[in-house]
Amino acid sequence: MVLRQGDDVFARLEAVMRDEAIPAAIISGFGFVGKATFGFFDYETKQYRPKTMTDLELTNLTGTLAWKDGEPAPHLHGTAGDDSFRTFGGHLLALEVGRGSLEINVLLIPTRLERAIDPDIGANVLQL
Amino acid sequence: MVLRQGDDVFARLEAVMRDEAIPAAIISGFGFVGKATFGFFDYETKQYRPKTMTDLELTNLTGTLAWKDGEPAPHLHGTAGDDSFRTFGGHLLALEVGRGSLEINVLLIPTRLERAIDPDIGANVLQL
Amino acid sequence: MVLRQGDDVFARLEAVMRDEAIPAAIISGFGFVGKATFGFFDYETKQYRPKTMTDLELTNLTGTLAWKDGEPAPHLHGTAGDDSFRTFGGHLLALEVGRGSLEINVLLIPTRLERAIDPDIGANVLQL
Repeated sequence: MVLRQGDDVFARLEAVMRDEAIPAAIISGFGFVGKATFGFFDYETKQYRPKTMTDLELTNLTGTLAWKDGEPAPHLHGTAGDDSFRTFGGHLLALEVGRGSLEINVLLIPTRLERAIDPDIGANVLQL
Repeated sequence: MVLRQGDDVFARLEAVMRDEAIPAAIISGFGFVGKATFGFFDYETKQYRPKTMTDLELTNLTGTLAWKDGEPAPHLHGTAGDDSFRTFGGHLLALEVGRGSLEINVLLIPTRLERAIDPDIGANVLQL
Repeated sequence: MVLRQGDDVFARLEAVMRDEAIPAAIISGFGFVGKATFGFFDYETKQYRPKTMTDLELTNLTGTLAWKDGEPAPHLHGTAGDDSFRTFGGHLLALEVGRGSLEINVLLIPTRLERAIDPDIGANVLQL
């Protein structure tokens, strides 16, 4: 997939999962990011502490596509560099393509994979 | 592919694209870098502002191989750590293997892919 | 593979290589890390200078599985972000899963690959 400026990466991946009935997939990608919201999981509050950054070269996007309660559930981590090549990274809560494009490679897995809350750790875990 | 000290990664990938008539490919890799030149695209000048760094562990190389105007056109992004494990990353303009080696995984795509300048954004975009 | 809190990533990969007789593989992954030990190779002493860090989101794991002297020899590089999304990365000496999980994609290569010390550079190099 080649996404263009302004595209919402999560929404686009969710639409492709529905339209193509993708059972599961491995994601890799890179490109230019207009806006990225990272979140660090706080186990006390069970919430992600978010931070939004703008205009970054995404050096790597790594993730999986799976389903949760019948809905598409992409899980993406990213690393991105700013105009001085310092890098930032973490779990992605939102990602919007910037000027230029973002290339995503979707490697299909033929078995449907589901995520579910693991009661021991209070987080979503991919069930194999 | 396993590249060795002093190898020019772009020249080696371009040679393999020609020699093996690779229509397109997904690239991932890692290894030791003698010299990496990153570039951040400046939309005002339509030029990359470059910075060269030396002796880094490349933690991830992500990219695609495609063609532009009949010539091989690798597009690579990288993240790399220095001797204190701080990381730097961005769009790669040049990459030379350092002491040790650099391992590159080339996942072939059977369809020939071309890049072309997108007039709206003034940058090369992969055409699917 | 989905690894859980406390799992030793190297030990788990080595066990899978033996149990499934994996000739070689490309590794990618991401998830939450309880403890990561990075090492930067010092060519004077031929030793890795190590540094251990805790509680990081692993934004990317890139590596290969091969064999050396009849033993499993995973080679892994990683990039990881802390709670302020600063990233660190390099060659991994040890990696333990943190709260949550770590997802690893193992892409099998049908040919057995071996690592051997390259006498010119004094480091392990993958033999193709």
